[in-house]
Amino acid sequence: MPALEAMSNPSPTRKYSVASGLLSGMRIVEGAAFVAGPLGGMTLAQLGADVIRFDPIGGGLDHRRWPITGDGRSLYWAGLNKGKRSVVLDLKSEEGRELATSLITAPGPDAGIFLTNYPVGAWLDYDHLAELRGDLIMCHILGNNDGSTAVDYTVNAAVGFPEITGPDDFGGVMNSVVPTWDLVTGMTAATGILAADRFRQRTGEGRLMRLSLSDVAVAVLGHLGQIAEVQVNDDDRGRYGNYLYGAFGRDFVTADDRRVMVVAITPRQFKGLIAAAGLQSQLEVVEKNLGFKLRSDGDLFNARETIAGILEPWFASQSLAEVATAFAAHRVLWGPYQTVRQMLENDPRATAANAMLEVIEQPGIGQYLMPGSPLDTGQDRLPPRPAPLLGEHTDEVLSEILDLSPGEIGRLHDRKVVAGAEPV
Amino acid sequence: MPALEAMSNPSPTRKYSVASGLLSGMRIVEGAAFVAGPLGGMTLAQLGADVIRFDPIGGGLDHRRWPITGDGRSLYWAGLNKGKRSVVLDLKSEEGRELATSLITAPGPDAGIFLTNYPVGAWLDYDHLAELRGDLIMCHILGNNDGSTAVDYTVNAAVGFPEITGPDDFGGVMNSVVPTWDLVTGMTAATGILAADRFRQRTGEGRLMRLSLSDVAVAVLGHLGQIAEVQVNDDDRGRYGNYLYGAFGRDFVTADDRRVMVVAITPRQFKGLIAAAGLQSQLEVVEKNLGFKLRSDGDLFNARETIAGILEPWFASQSLAEVATAFAAHRVLWGPYQTVRQMLENDPRATAANAMLEVIEQPGIGQYLMPGSPLDTGQDRLPPRPAPLLGEHTDEVLSEILDLSPGEIGRLHDRKVVAGAEPV
Repeated sequence: MPALEAMSNPSPTRKYSVASGLLSGMRIVEGAAFVAGPLGGMTLAQLGADVIRFDPIGGGLDHRRWPITGDGRSLYWAGLNKGKRSVVLDLKSEEGRELATSLITAPGPDAGIFLTNYPVGAWLDYDHLAELRGDLIMCHILGNNDGSTAVDYTVNAAVGFPEITGPDDFGGVMNSVVPTWDLVTGMTAATGILAADRFRQRTGEGRLMRLSLSDVAVAVLGHLGQIAEVQVNDDDRGRYGNYLYGAFGRDFVTADDRRVMVVAITPRQFKGLIAAAGLQSQLEVVEKNLGFKLRSDGDLFNARETIAGILEPWFASQSLAEVATAFAAHRVLWGPYQTVRQMLENDPRATAANAMLEVIEQPGIGQYLMPGSPLDTGQDRLPPRPAPLLGEHTDEVLSEILDLSPGEIGRLHDRKVVAGAEPV
Repeated sequence: MPALEAMSNPSPTRKYSVASGLLSGMRIVEGAAFVAGPLGGMTLAQLGADVIRFDPIGGGLDHRRWPITGDGRSLYWAGLNKGKRSVVLDLKSEEGRELATSLITAPGPDAGIFLTNYPVGAWLDYDHLAELRGDLIMCHILGNNDGSTAVDYTVNAAVGFPEITGPDDFGGVMNSVVPTWDLVTGMTAATGILAADRFRQRTGEGRLMRLSLSDVAVAVLGHLGQIAEVQVNDDDRGRYGNYLYGAFGRDFVTADDRRVMVVAITPRQFKGLIAAAGLQSQLEVVEKNLGFKLRSDGDLFNARETIAGILEPWFASQSLAEVATAFAAHRVLWGPYQTVRQMLENDPRATAANAMLEVIEQPGIGQYLMPGSPLDTGQDRLPPRPAPLLGEHTDEVLSEILDLSPGEIGRLHDRKVVAGAEPV
């Protein structure tokens, strides 16, 4: 069991003794760049799978993606490849491609799983790979489902959200700063791989799964009711600024110039909010004018501006600390707005007090707080592990998985078909 | 195999003959509301799992969540519960809770999986349930990992994105209209359930997995390098409006007043964009003034306003159709902005031409385009299935899974411990 042996003899950058994780023993080969593919692989690595990433020598298109350190190391690449092993190969050479192909199709009931978002020409074609391993599981992430190129930002433009983001008097389109479609696609890939693995265990059959960013985004639009909103209700969702659609929610400014997000979806939450602010009598006036009691989430949405109007002066008279105290007593659903720095400095959800987080040394970059899997599986939960150095595991993987001798590996280095770790 | 029998005898709302899906035979019980839990269950249902959702009689807190039809049916609930079975129980009664508990812990190697975001007091406590089924897999979705309440909108406020969304001269915070943390949490739950199922098949051991929206959001912040950006670089991400961070990307207005999103992350993409617009000589002037060639994605980001400045007049002189033609010839990475309506009317990615999508009758609502799983698994891919009517499968499930006789089920109805389907 070479892969398990490697996990029990961690490389010098992984010093702790760890549980082995729910997916211990599973091996995935990843040839992927940017967010979705690498996130899918990392999700499985953080649950204990042995994820071997291959890259061209010198790194792929995402190896220097921003944010970067002063000397050009990518914090993004390090963030999306935690806990994987890294192999670098000359993917333009026949020999380098054959090595990648051999890794992808290597035997073993827990191996033979390939995750990629590369354009799959002849050498990465599923039918070609399946000649070498008939039960191969391959998840191929695409931009659009016809194989044409798209990225999170172009997909997001297509599905309507930038048209409804921002204040109602804002005329243009507003892009998102969160690559939601990449994130959901990466997680869908992880789910798909585990589903196909379960299927293979029962039937012996492999599968090619094609998964596109645009299908993920269109599916979510359907899931949230936004396709039916047009096709059934003949309605176009408006632009509601910071108001929560379909219930009551908005940001407010406190006396000490902080902002808080307040949400009331259920009648209990709304009652608690009004009680915490001591605004029962003002609410009674509002309801008298309306001629009905504000009960449902739809009522709250329709009356949102009136409700916000009675709440605003209260927030303006309270400090953030006073708001927190009043809201705790009435179980109000709320939270402060924070910058990333404020969160890291003040919020226990984002410090090492949180069992998911640990300060780790990332070789070549330094020490900082890294997350493990958000799935808290108790005794099996793995601590976060840093990303590999690019090429850190080339020799180890060629020896373990492909059974190459030191002499053979040496000759591959000499001919520049493979390379070792980038300098720290 | 009562569950399989039920799947081969679909209820009248599911008339087509279908492949059985990668997860055929797996049974999950879901007690969940809003987005994350229901999405996690639906993701597995769309891959072939038998997902049985239980709700209080009359529906849970999300049963009327907006958007709704004119007569109050929730397009949102229908969207997030496609392909599941629905059971309704009086969850305030001891007997109703016992029925739910029996469903959750019913025997079978492919059963004993429970997905919930309910507050788990005594009766839904893992240790209590595990007394009835020792190898139970339970995924418990939380707001914050300490069990305190949080929702997507309060978590999003906490992790810094609203502070960097919008134009650089915008002073406030800008909420997202996409519940990203709900979506990613739901997909993480689906992944976790399949990982725990794999582990149980190998070890016979069940697991409780706790998963919070806030941990998911903080983890993503780490994955994208934004924690290290503060802790290593001592840098606070700015507000860049519609510019793509770390490369070149922005919206532009065409001569016919449409907007397009244009992206160049790689040197090839940038070269293609400039060539498509015929702006090579203007770029040479820019580069001469800068004193260097714009090559890396970081260069492109730093020079983003200059680059946008030379592109703007070109876009203003071209119709959307002309832009599309020029960009196709140079493989430019771009896409038009669309409202949901425009997408549904014009974009083949969002019509029944897309194999993921089909026009389906949703009982009580009508016909509209519904998505199946975005994972295209070829022959195993299931067509989209509508959501159940609330309570549609109460009797069927009590009979199949709990082996109750028609007389016993009738008495449960008489005592209002259970109910049947809501009226169409």
